[in-house]
Amino acid sequence: MIKVGIVGGTGYTGVELLRLLATHPNVKVTAITSRGEAGRPVSDLFPNLRGHFDLPFTDPADGGLDHCDVVFFATPHGVAQSTVPELLKKGIKVIDLSADFRIRDITLWEKWYNQPHACPELVGEAVYGLPEVNRDKIKDARLIACPGCYPTSVQLGFLPLLEKGLVDTSDLIANSASGASGAGRQASVNNLLAETTDSFKAYGVPGHRHLPEIEQGLMDIAGSPVDLTFVPHLLPIIRGIHSTLYATLKGTALDYSEVELQQLYEDCFKDEPFVDVMPAGSHPQTRSVRGSNTCRISVFRPQGGNKVVVLVVEDNLVKGASGQAIQNMNIMFGLPESAGLEAPALLP
Amino acid sequence: MIKVGIVGGTGYTGVELLRLLATHPNVKVTAITSRGEAGRPVSDLFPNLRGHFDLPFTDPADGGLDHCDVVFFATPHGVAQSTVPELLKKGIKVIDLSADFRIRDITLWEKWYNQPHACPELVGEAVYGLPEVNRDKIKDARLIACPGCYPTSVQLGFLPLLEKGLVDTSDLIANSASGASGAGRQASVNNLLAETTDSFKAYGVPGHRHLPEIEQGLMDIAGSPVDLTFVPHLLPIIRGIHSTLYATLKGTALDYSEVELQQLYEDCFKDEPFVDVMPAGSHPQTRSVRGSNTCRISVFRPQGGNKVVVLVVEDNLVKGASGQAIQNMNIMFGLPESAGLEAPALLP
Amino acid sequence: MIKVGIVGGTGYTGVELLRLLATHPNVKVTAITSRGEAGRPVSDLFPNLRGHFDLPFTDPADGGLDHCDVVFFATPHGVAQSTVPELLKKGIKVIDLSADFRIRDITLWEKWYNQPHACPELVGEAVYGLPEVNRDKIKDARLIACPGCYPTSVQLGFLPLLEKGLVDTSDLIANSASGASGAGRQASVNNLLAETTDSFKAYGVPGHRHLPEIEQGLMDIAGSPVDLTFVPHLLPIIRGIHSTLYATLKGTALDYSEVELQQLYEDCFKDEPFVDVMPAGSHPQTRSVRGSNTCRISVFRPQGGNKVVVLVVEDNLVKGASGQAIQNMNIMFGLPESAGLEAPALLP
Amino acid sequence: MIKVGIVGGTGYTGVELLRLLATHPNVKVTAITSRGEAGRPVSDLFPNLRGHFDLPFTDPADGGLDHCDVVFFATPHGVAQSTVPELLKKGIKVIDLSADFRIRDITLWEKWYNQPHACPELVGEAVYGLPEVNRDKIKDARLIACPGCYPTSVQLGFLPLLEKGLVDTSDLIANSASGASGAGRQASVNNLLAETTDSFKAYGVPGHRHLPEIEQGLMDIAGSPVDLTFVPHLLPIIRGIHSTLYATLKGTALDYSEVELQQLYEDCFKDEPFVDVMPAGSHPQTRSVRGSNTCRISVFRPQGGNKVVVLVVEDNLVKGASGQAIQNMNIMFGLPESAGLEAPALLP
Repeated sequence: MIKVGIVGGTGYTGVELLRLLATHPNVKVTAITSRGEAGRPVSDLFPNLRGHFDLPFTDPADGGLDHCDVVFFATPHGVAQSTVPELLKKGIKVIDLSADFRIRDITLWEKWYNQPHACPELVGEAVYGLPEVNRDKIKDARLIACPGCYPTSVQLGFLPLLEKGLVDTSDLIANSASGASGAGRQASVNNLLAETTDSFKAYGVPGHRHLPEIEQGLMDIAGSPVDLTFVPHLLPIIRGIHSTLYATLKGTALDYSEVELQQLYEDCFKDEPFVDVMPAGSHPQTRSVRGSNTCRISVFRPQGGNKVVVLVVEDNLVKGASGQAIQNMNIMFGLPESAGLEAPALLP
Repeated sequence: MIKVGIVGGTGYTGVELLRLLATHPNVKVTAITSRGEAGRPVSDLFPNLRGHFDLPFTDPADGGLDHCDVVFFATPHGVAQSTVPELLKKGIKVIDLSADFRIRDITLWEKWYNQPHACPELVGEAVYGLPEVNRDKIKDARLIACPGCYPTSVQLGFLPLLEKGLVDTSDLIANSASGASGAGRQASVNNLLAETTDSFKAYGVPGHRHLPEIEQGLMDIAGSPVDLTFVPHLLPIIRGIHSTLYATLKGTALDYSEVELQQLYEDCFKDEPFVDVMPAGSHPQTRSVRGSNTCRISVFRPQGGNKVVVLVVEDNLVKGASGQAIQNMNIMFGLPESAGLEAPALLP
Repeated sequence: MIKVGIVGGTGYTGVELLRLLATHPNVKVTAITSRGEAGRPVSDLFPNLRGHFDLPFTDPADGGLDHCDVVFFATPHGVAQSTVPELLKKGIKVIDLSADFRIRDITLWEKWYNQPHACPELVGEAVYGLPEVNRDKIKDARLIACPGCYPTSVQLGFLPLLEKGLVDTSDLIANSASGASGAGRQASVNNLLAETTDSFKAYGVPGHRHLPEIEQGLMDIAGSPVDLTFVPHLLPIIRGIHSTLYATLKGTALDYSEVELQQLYEDCFKDEPFVDVMPAGSHPQTRSVRGSNTCRISVFRPQGGNKVVVLVVEDNLVKGASGQAIQNMNIMFGLPESAGLEAPALLP
Repeated sequence: MIKVGIVGGTGYTGVELLRLLATHPNVKVTAITSRGEAGRPVSDLFPNLRGHFDLPFTDPADGGLDHCDVVFFATPHGVAQSTVPELLKKGIKVIDLSADFRIRDITLWEKWYNQPHACPELVGEAVYGLPEVNRDKIKDARLIACPGCYPTSVQLGFLPLLEKGLVDTSDLIANSASGASGAGRQASVNNLLAETTDSFKAYGVPGHRHLPEIEQGLMDIAGSPVDLTFVPHLLPIIRGIHSTLYATLKGTALDYSEVELQQLYEDCFKDEPFVDVMPAGSHPQTRSVRGSNTCRISVFRPQGGNKVVVLVVEDNLVKGASGQAIQNMNIMFGLPESAGLEAPALLP
C-alpha cells in the first residue's frame, strides 16, 4: 500500500482527496495535517467521512509526513513552496494542488500572485500534471504541479485544434463558469447562499490568476504564442465547470466540416480514460461529471461559419483538482491510471 | 412626508426596509447609519437600489437621526438598547427589529441572549408589534418591538386555536424551516452556498432564542401557560419561512370538523390585510409570499384524528421583519395599513 | 384607466404581466383569456395574485377583449397571427410578446419557426418594441412586436459599439445564459428541478430561434451586415439573463481606452430609464435586476487587448418580456414611461 | 458473478441501481428493460453511465430476464404484480422497489393505490426489506418488498424507542421533507425548476400513500397499534430525505436523560453497517449522505420536556430505494452486506 499524506485537509480539495482515496485499492492515508484543527478527527469536520477515516488532523510539525511515499498539498498558494524541498530531500514525492509550481516564468508568477516565490529553483523541475499532455514526464516526476480547475477544462477543449494548428491563436476565447466550491471553504459574505443562489455573474474580467497558466499551457500545445480572452463566471451550483470555447478556423481548416471536427476530437482522445467526446450534436451537462474524474467535450461549427465552439465540462474538485491529482499519483507509481477513480458520476 | 431613519442598514433587514420604502407614498428616508460603511452610497452595497436611493451611509454619531419622525433599528441584538432612550426623549418614535425589547421577563432575556439588558425600564412600555394581536396598542406606541421571523409565523398559525381554547396548550409543536437570509449577512463558513445548497438540516434543537419569545406570545393569546417544542430547520432558499404546526384537539373541540376549522380560521382573519387563509385542502408555498407582506395559512385535521395541522408561510424578511415593521409604522402614523406593502409576491 | 386584455394568461409572461399591472396606476385588467382554464380564477393558478385579482380566465371566444384599449399576447408563437388583424380593425392596440411579428423577412421566420406565417401583411407595420432603439416609432404604433429575452440583452449590450462603428461586425459573439423560466411553464422532463438544478449546460449551439432576431436587430443598429455566434446556456435559477458579449475593436477604435469605452456607454444610455451602466470595473449580477425592468451593463477591455467584453443582465420575464411590454404600452399611451415599473429589484 | 436484471430502467431508481452496480465487485448487469426505450443505449439517456455500461434497453418480452439470478423492479406501482410470479417460478429472485408487495392488508393496499391487486397470493410471502428489522428473513427470501423512502427514515428513527416501549404510540409525528427526485422522472409542471426551486411546501397532508406502510412497520416494531401524523414536504434539492420525528415519553421513560437516550440509540444500531448515530448534540445534514447508503440519526430531549425529537437523514435514492435494494441482494446472496455500497457520500 502506498502511504499518503495530505497537507491542508480542511478545504474542499482536501476532503475530496479523502473521499476518493477512501475506496482506492492501493493506498492508505497515514497523515493529514492542519495547524488549526490538530487533534480533531477529520470526520468531525466532514461527516461524510464518518466510518471511513478515524484519522485526526495532526500538526505539520509532528513529522507524520516523514513516513509517507507521497504527499498531496491541498493548501492555499504560497504554502507548498516552503515545505516541498525538505520532503523531496527525504525521497517523498509531492503532488501540489496549489498554484505554486504551475508557472515557469517566476516573474509572471510573482506578478499575478503578488508575493516573492520562495522556491524558484524547483519550478523548472516540476512537471505540469495534465496527463493528456504530459503523461510521460509525469511517470518519472518527483514534483507535480497540478493544473488549476479552469485551466484543465480550457486546455483539454482547445487541445485538438491547437495541436493541428487549425485555428487563429491570436483570437481564442474561453467563457467559463464554475460552481461555488471553486471559491474554497473560507468564511465570506460574497459566497453566502443568500448572496449567490438564484443568481449569476461574471467576475475577474480584467484579469484572473488562471489566465497566465492557461496561456502557458496553450502555448506549449500550440508551439506558438496565443492570445486568450478569459471570462470566468460564478454558478449557483456546488461543483462543476463548464467552459464554452470559441476559436476562428484559419487557412485550409476552413474546409473542415463539423463531421471532420468531431472525428478530430474523437481521434485525439480515443485512448484517454478520462476524456469523453460526446456524440455529435449533444451538449454536455456539468451534472454528468459530478463527483467523477471525467471531462466531457462537444465540438460544433455553428451555422457553418468560421467559428468553432467547444463545450467542456468537468467537476472542478475532481478532474479540476483532487481526482486529477490522484490520476497523477497513479501514473507516478505505476498503478492502473483509473485506480480509485472508477465510480460513475452522481446523476441525478 | 414622514421622515425615516434606519440604524444598521448593511444587513438584509436594512436593505429590505429600503426596498419597500422606495415605493412608499408617504415616506422619505432621510438617514441611514453604519459605522463601518459611513460615506459609502447604499446603492454601492446593494445594486438593486441604484437609481432609487442616492443616500450614503452616515456615522450614527453625526446626528442625522435627530430630524427623523421614526427610526428603525435593523441591528443585531444589544444595539438598540443603548440608543433608544435618547431618541424617545427627542420625541422620535422607534421601531426595533431586533430582539431587544421583545421579552418582558428581563431575566429570561438575559439568559437567552447571554448579556445584561442595558435598558430594562423601557421593556414594559415597548409594544410587541404583531398587528393581528396588538393593533390598538400599536396605534399609540412610542416604541415597537417587532416580532421575530419564526415567532410571527407560529403565533399567527396557532392564534385561532388558542383564542378559542380548542387545543391542549401543553402539547404544541412548531416544526419550522427558514431560508438562509434569516442567518443574516455575516461572513461564515456554515452559510456558504457550497455548504448549504442542495442540503437540509435542523439546527438549535436543544434551544433557540425564538423559543421564549414564541412561548410568551402564545401565552398572551391563550391566557394560560403553554409548552412548545420548537425545531427550526435551514432551507437552501433565500427567503421564506414555512411552519408546520401540530396541536391536539381537546374536549368538545374534538367534534370540530375540518370544515369548521377552516371556517374558524377564515373568520378569525377575515379583516386582516396580510393574513390569507387558503382554500380548504390547499398547501401554501413559500414562493407565493416571496417579497410580500402576506402570511398564508392552511388548516387540516388529517385522517380525522385528534391532531390539527396548520401550515403557515411568510417571507422572513417582509412579514417576518421589515414589512411588518412598516405595517407597524403605518398603524402608528395613521396611514393606510397597506401603504407601501401592496405589491404581489414575485412568482415564479 | 386604460382597459387591458391579456391573451394566454397561464404562462410565466402572463402571470408576470398581472403582477406588474397590479400596481400600475393607470391600468385596469378587464379580461384574461385561456381556453383551457376558462372559468378558473387566475389567483387559483397563481397564488401570489390572491387578493390582487378576482378575475377568472375567460374563453377567447367570449368577446371580453372587445372592450379593451390594448391587448397583450402572452402566447406561444403562431397564436397572435390569427387574432391580431380583427383586434386592430376594432381599434384595439396590440402588444405581442411572442415571436410572430419580430422578423421582417417572412421566409426567414417560416424557416426558423417551421410553419407558414398566417399574417404576413402586418409584419411590415409591426414596430419592434425595443424603446432604446425605436421609441419614436413605438409612440404611434398599433402593433408592437416585443423583443425576445436574449435579443434584448444582446442588442442593448452591443448598441453603443455598433452605433459608433467601433467593432468588427463580422466577429460578434454572444455567450448568454438564462434562468429556467425562459423555457416556459410546460410539463417536461428536461426542465424538472431534479434534472436541472445544481447543473449547467449550453443548448441550441447549432442554431437557436433568437439568432435571426438578434442579427436583424444588430444590423438595424449597425447599418451593415453582422455575423453573430450565439450560444445560449441554461442556468439553474428561476429568473435572469446574463449575456457576456465579445467584439473586436477595429481601426481607430483600437485607441479607445477602457475609460473612454465606459464614457461611451454612460453617454449612450444616460437618458434611458431602464438601462443602468454600472461603475467601471464592476460586474452586474442577475439578482440585482430580479423582478425589475432594469438592464445593467458593464464594459471591459481586458488586458488592454483588442477585445471588448460587455456584461449585460436583465430579468428575462421583465425587461426581457412583460416589463418591456408595459414600457411599450406606457409609451404608446403617453403615460410616464416608468409607470408601474418603479419597484426596485428583489435582493437578496 | 451474479447476473442482474432491471425492469424499468428509465427512472431515477433505475439509473441509481446502475450507478451503484457499476462498481459492485460481484455483479454483472445482463438485462435492463424498457418498452418505450428498447434499443437505445442506457448511457444515451443517462450520460453519467457513458463508459460504464454498453447495454441497450431491451423489450421486456425479449426474454432477457430469464437468465438472471435476480431481477430488480424499478417500476411504478402495479407493474411488478403481474410479472413477478413467472420470474419466481423460473427460480429467479425478485427485489421490488415499488409499493406492490409492501402492505400485507390487501384491502388497505387497494384503497390507497386505488386499483385491484393482481397478485395477492404472494403478498404474504414477500419479505419487507428493511435489514435493520428483518435481516434474517431477508436471507432466505425469494421476493423482497423494498421499503419506501419516507418509511425507511421514519421506521429507523423510531425503532429504538418503540422496541423498548418508551413512548406513547398513540401520539407519533413524522415531519418529513424530500428532495425532488422523490417525485420521479415524469414530465410535470409542478416539478419544474421554475416552480419548485427557491421555495418550500408541504403536500399530501390529508393522506399520503406512505402512511399505511409506515404505520404497518411501526406496529410490527412496537407490537401494538400506533397512531401517526405524517406530513411530507417538498425540498428544492435533488436527493435527500430529512425526517424530524416527535414522540412523547411515557411512564418510567420520563426518567431517561438525553445521555441515556443517546446510549439507547448507539446500542441499538452499533452493529448496523448503514445506520450512523451522530455524536450527541449534532444535527445531521442530508448532504452528509448524498449518494451513500448511510442513514444518520440524532436524538434530543429538548428543554428537558417530555418530547423526544429524532432527526434522520438518508438519500432517498440510495438507502431510501436502490442502495437498500442492493443491500437486500447482498444479504440474499450471502455477499458482504456492504459490497458495492462502500463509497463515502459526496460532500460538498
